[in-house]
Amino acid sequence: MTAGSQDVFTSLDEKQAGYLEELKEYLRIPSVSTDPEHKADVLRCSEFLLGKLEAAGLEAESIAIDGNPLIYAEWTKAEGKPTVLFYGHYDVQPADPIEEWRNPPFEPTEEGDLLVCRGATDDKGQSFTHVKAVEALLETRGELPVNVKFLVEGEEEIGGHGIENFVIEDAGKRLACDAVVVSDTSLFAPGQPSLLYGLKGLAYMEIKVKGPDRDLHSGTFGGAVANPGNALSQIIAQLQDPKTGKILIPGFYDDALPLESWEREEFAKLPFDEAEYMADLGVSELFGEEGYSTLERAWTRPTCDVNGIYGGYQGEGAKTVIPAWAGAKVSMRLVPNQDPAKIARLFSDYVKKIAPPGVEVEVSDLHGAEPVLVDIQGPIADAAMDAQEQVWGARPVRIREGGSIPIVATFSKVLQVPVLLIGHGLPDDRLHAPNEKFNISHFYKGIRTIVRLLDEVGETA
Amino acid sequence: MTAGSQDVFTSLDEKQAGYLEELKEYLRIPSVSTDPEHKADVLRCSEFLLGKLEAAGLEAESIAIDGNPLIYAEWTKAEGKPTVLFYGHYDVQPADPIEEWRNPPFEPTEEGDLLVCRGATDDKGQSFTHVKAVEALLETRGELPVNVKFLVEGEEEIGGHGIENFVIEDAGKRLACDAVVVSDTSLFAPGQPSLLYGLKGLAYMEIKVKGPDRDLHSGTFGGAVANPGNALSQIIAQLQDPKTGKILIPGFYDDALPLESWEREEFAKLPFDEAEYMADLGVSELFGEEGYSTLERAWTRPTCDVNGIYGGYQGEGAKTVIPAWAGAKVSMRLVPNQDPAKIARLFSDYVKKIAPPGVEVEVSDLHGAEPVLVDIQGPIADAAMDAQEQVWGARPVRIREGGSIPIVATFSKVLQVPVLLIGHGLPDDRLHAPNEKFNISHFYKGIRTIVRLLDEVGETA
Repeated sequence: MTAGSQDVFTSLDEKQAGYLEELKEYLRIPSVSTDPEHKADVLRCSEFLLGKLEAAGLEAESIAIDGNPLIYAEWTKAEGKPTVLFYGHYDVQPADPIEEWRNPPFEPTEEGDLLVCRGATDDKGQSFTHVKAVEALLETRGELPVNVKFLVEGEEEIGGHGIENFVIEDAGKRLACDAVVVSDTSLFAPGQPSLLYGLKGLAYMEIKVKGPDRDLHSGTFGGAVANPGNALSQIIAQLQDPKTGKILIPGFYDDALPLESWEREEFAKLPFDEAEYMADLGVSELFGEEGYSTLERAWTRPTCDVNGIYGGYQGEGAKTVIPAWAGAKVSMRLVPNQDPAKIARLFSDYVKKIAPPGVEVEVSDLHGAEPVLVDIQGPIADAAMDAQEQVWGARPVRIREGGSIPIVATFSKVLQVPVLLIGHGLPDDRLHAPNEKFNISHFYKGIRTIVRLLDEVGETA
Repeated sequence: MTAGSQDVFTSLDEKQAGYLEELKEYLRIPSVSTDPEHKADVLRCSEFLLGKLEAAGLEAESIAIDGNPLIYAEWTKAEGKPTVLFYGHYDVQPADPIEEWRNPPFEPTEEGDLLVCRGATDDKGQSFTHVKAVEALLETRGELPVNVKFLVEGEEEIGGHGIENFVIEDAGKRLACDAVVVSDTSLFAPGQPSLLYGLKGLAYMEIKVKGPDRDLHSGTFGGAVANPGNALSQIIAQLQDPKTGKILIPGFYDDALPLESWEREEFAKLPFDEAEYMADLGVSELFGEEGYSTLERAWTRPTCDVNGIYGGYQGEGAKTVIPAWAGAKVSMRLVPNQDPAKIARLFSDYVKKIAPPGVEVEVSDLHGAEPVLVDIQGPIADAAMDAQEQVWGARPVRIREGGSIPIVATFSKVLQVPVLLIGHGLPDDRLHAPNEKFNISHFYKGIRTIVRLLDEVGETA
């Protein structure tokens, strides 16, 4: 069934090793968007990508926005053919805790089939498959079967609003297309491709609990003043019921779209081995909201997690202080129909209400993202599923995900076209964690999936 | 009434500014005992002190023990006269959070009457008054009114057991004396000296909560696994009742010696201004165990405080991870008759029992210290109170303290002599906190108090 792309696939057999080396160059640039110290690296990374898009044969430009620049590129000479818009991001998560990496986090290292590096899968490696698929097609044939556009951002990991504003202002003019393709997710399992139709949203908050105006000697003042570390723990402990796993913020579940019965049935059929899942995570027990399976919890139920907690003495040994303050970053993953701004407000009100006596509590809304259910009906979505089936040898399953890709909701709303979330990664890719990896074979198959997808979409019109 | 020491006081008027410069040199050595990186500084500091004791006219030596060396010195030519043993410590707390210091933490800086530096009051500045009082007496008269011995340790801030073992092995031979004098506390209030007779003990614990074997993406895995940050907070929240302030560890209060009615009465008479106390700490509300006044809570009731809490992402901005682990340092201040080892066991058992599902919990006992009530009866204690009254112009009040000076219990038990806790500091000296200070006038009066004390004790025999 891949006959129509065989010419490109044959040329890829030759070229892919070189593409991998280019990916390594891309990965070596530590484009950590959350850290101001890496500002110059982020810019350098955007320019690297721009160069690669031009080298592939596209017209490319860097678009200055409020934030890290957008990289835009296009090839629109396939008259009368559909247009596919590729989205990706060139920024990455921080590397810490650095001491847990087997190799330097920004030195891509091959370990058998694995390419280990921050950004290997999320999202440099995955979105680079778009660039290289287009390059391979153009080099082999001198033309593309469809029109393509690229929009690649540098603030995905920090929830920057630059791209969102750009898409809204553009209102489908320059970005006019028939489908958006995003590769920032994973197959359901090795050998089992998937098409994602649901993503969670996010409300990311910071709590700061302030006590005395300085660290106090815990002997002299212990027992006489409230301790911000104890108080912060009291607050966090009241966010979730430790028995039922329910979030205790009043109104939290009010707008959440319930899981539909067809989804329950479809998810239950998926090959999911809980023992293997636990073994992979290194836990002997799972914990989550009662009344839901593990996949249902991870994909369709809102959550509330501490992402970081800090205060007082963290060094070696013992220091006897009452810390002047303690803080935590707490994020809630939201499901379709929950509004990040409203949830942030409910969180803030609740935290202030349950604050114990003797401390002051500040709550900040660090960023939010809309949850989304995308349209996966129609010939282009069918073409995408066919392409995946032909490359991976199995029909994609329809799944949801617990992650947030904020721009997907915007694309869906503004451009009003299918947004196809075609991930090439694996669930154990350790994204956001030390030793993030991307299977090299998945990089190669990802490129073929995109080639085949463009050929399939070309055939729909 | 200070006539008997006037000769020395007059010479001090000349010498004290020079003594202050010597103290600054002592303070510039960052003798942070808890940090292995400062090991060489700690040793250098012990040698500096040794040199100062020799320069004062004492025979001094460094005693190698398992841990930082003890500095011992003596002058025992006052035949038939009592012997006073001075105790102090040359190690200091870490400086962090460093960014909150107005000046570099190990550069002693004069701000009016204040000398700001780590260790200024705790305990370099205070114990240096012993050295300089002896030096001034010897320089002025060529002899001392009593015999003196010094034992100064380098592991007070980390609860090292070296000195304890040394005192127990010595069993009152080399350390034979009639009283121990310690200056590691404060006056009750400006102008109001005090004699301390009770100190709290300590049980310092670390809790480590382990979840998955790596940091996980909070989207992909949120809701499916227990979060160590949430779980740690659940545990800490159950250590203390947020309404009554009672510690909830079963058996915690069983052995605690209750406050006696004479103490309640004596404390109630002290000039204590709660509004001023709150203003000094920068809090708008106090919080503690119900049924006790602020002084009673701080001095006579056991406590349980978070000293540090940590886990997950602590950098700028947002990182969406479920941390692999979270930890906290939690210490309990103990009152007379509570046993640190027993309390550590009760804590550990309770924490493991209340650990929420899905995580593993480890509890370590970092160190302990015995609470103590010391003997303040007899002629030497009376002499000490007279000396304080003459220098400060007010009769000392008898008080307790919330801090722990572990060696005091050992001195009391092994040497069976009064242990006189004569502090020269002030309650707002910010010990263990940024911008620790010692009033320069208190340094000078402290030296005079010790001179007068030695003369008074000499007159008792």
